[in-house]
Amino acid sequence: MTEKTFQVEGMSCGHCELSVQEALDELEGVRGSKADHKNGTVEVTYEEGTVTNEQFKEAVEEAGYTLRS
Amino acid sequence: MTEKTFQVEGMSCGHCELSVQEALDELEGVRGSKADHKNGTVEVTYEEGTVTNEQFKEAVEEAGYTLRS
Repeated sequence: MTEKTFQVEGMSCGHCELSVQEALDELEGVRGSKADHKNGTVEVTYEEGTVTNEQFKEAVEEAGYTLRS
Repeated sequence: MTEKTFQVEGMSCGHCELSVQEALDELEGVRGSKADHKNGTVEVTYEEGTVTNEQFKEAVEEAGYTLRS
């Protein structure tokens, strides 16, 4: 299991945190995520080698936010 | 049918608008509502005499926001 923290732009409240987390948690290989709109970050726990940064980025963008790796 | 516009504190994004709208739309007599987080307002359409300001206020507070009548 690996943990990675990304910067996320556009989260303004707890609802936004949930939207980002749900988008990431749906990815195969992701075990969980914790977003923080005040810091503008999300910490993702996932099985090493299963998910690429590009997939994280796309998932977050589809939810309406921008992930900076 | 009557329309009333209230000030709402605490909405920071479109999710917040939806939360406020859903809380108001559940009230008996309410036909619809439109929240705007940028202006901090919500416009409610309802059948005259069916809902009190206190009921609007409670519904919005339960959703986690503050309504100023």
